[in-house]
Amino acid sequence: MDYYSKEINQLIEEFTRLPGIGAKTAQRLAFHVIHMPKEEVEQFANTMISARRNVRYCKSCFTLTDQEYCPICRSDNRDKHTIMVVESTRDLAAYEKTGKYNGLYHVLHGAISPMLGIGPADIRIRELLVRLQQEDIKEVIIATNSSLEGEATAMYISRLIKPSGIKVSRIASGVPVGGDLEYIDEVTLSRALDGRVEL
Amino acid sequence: MDYYSKEINQLIEEFTRLPGIGAKTAQRLAFHVIHMPKEEVEQFANTMISARRNVRYCKSCFTLTDQEYCPICRSDNRDKHTIMVVESTRDLAAYEKTGKYNGLYHVLHGAISPMLGIGPADIRIRELLVRLQQEDIKEVIIATNSSLEGEATAMYISRLIKPSGIKVSRIASGVPVGGDLEYIDEVTLSRALDGRVEL
Repeated sequence: MDYYSKEINQLIEEFTRLPGIGAKTAQRLAFHVIHMPKEEVEQFANTMISARRNVRYCKSCFTLTDQEYCPICRSDNRDKHTIMVVESTRDLAAYEKTGKYNGLYHVLHGAISPMLGIGPADIRIRELLVRLQQEDIKEVIIATNSSLEGEATAMYISRLIKPSGIKVSRIASGVPVGGDLEYIDEVTLSRALDGRVEL
Repeated sequence: MDYYSKEINQLIEEFTRLPGIGAKTAQRLAFHVIHMPKEEVEQFANTMISARRNVRYCKSCFTLTDQEYCPICRSDNRDKHTIMVVESTRDLAAYEKTGKYNGLYHVLHGAISPMLGIGPADIRIRELLVRLQQEDIKEVIIATNSSLEGEATAMYISRLIKPSGIKVSRIASGVPVGGDLEYIDEVTLSRALDGRVEL
């Protein structure tokens, strides 16, 4: 690509490295940045550097946060006896958006995946067990993804926790609300059947 | 959004401002940046600031470049008697990729659009006329987009130039190569008919 000058090419290249950004989008974004007011570009760049520098894992639940403990762990209004285990900070955010959960979280940062070489020691399972010993937890809700890896991780964690007598539950799996049965895969349909509840 | 801490939210917000980047993509990009090595984030940020600071318009053809004159205007291997008029630097790049054009360019940075309040004085038409007086140009090829605005701009420019005796041409409009007639709109089909060439 020598149709553009060096600095433009470099900027396009940087954007191309981002996930899901192809060559065309990278060009569009680079030209947008070049046309943005100077101060806004500088603010964007500094936000990027500062976020990368200051964001770390919460010392308790391991979500990404810019302080030692995240706002949820620090809050006095949360139920400190329940932990929801999720794969990522974005999954935590997804549940927070529902406004229906008021307990604590534990972010694993991944799921067990023999295919990708990710074992139990590579995600924050050990840290969860330590919390269960130190805190007064009554229930652990496992909300890993409904994928093969998520299910395997859920099974693995529940087996580890059960002997301790703490209640372990798994979020329900079935037909999504508004879902049209016709378009839903068989595995989901049979899960929904197995998990049927009496009315 | 107070599911994330402040610095993460700020970064997501910055990404959301980019064109075509929705809330979900912005989240994905922000988390990607947070997980990137520190040096790479700093390099990305600095490239952004530096490109914004150093990229300017070529003094002759007005394409975006990081020097006073762009590589095409400075080159000794280009035909200095032909100018191709395009709407943007990205259109210039599109033609450069074909490798079939060896003349100079003139980048308008837009097209005449009464709808958007863009008149002839808002794009680089005056600068083109100045070039035609100062340089020894034999042909002007108008390669604005085949949209309403692009066509209007082409008509406008050709009327301005014609009295000077310089040859003015317009890139051909018709069925794209590999195009299936069945799926091509009627306007394009009738254009292709009007523009038929003898075999």
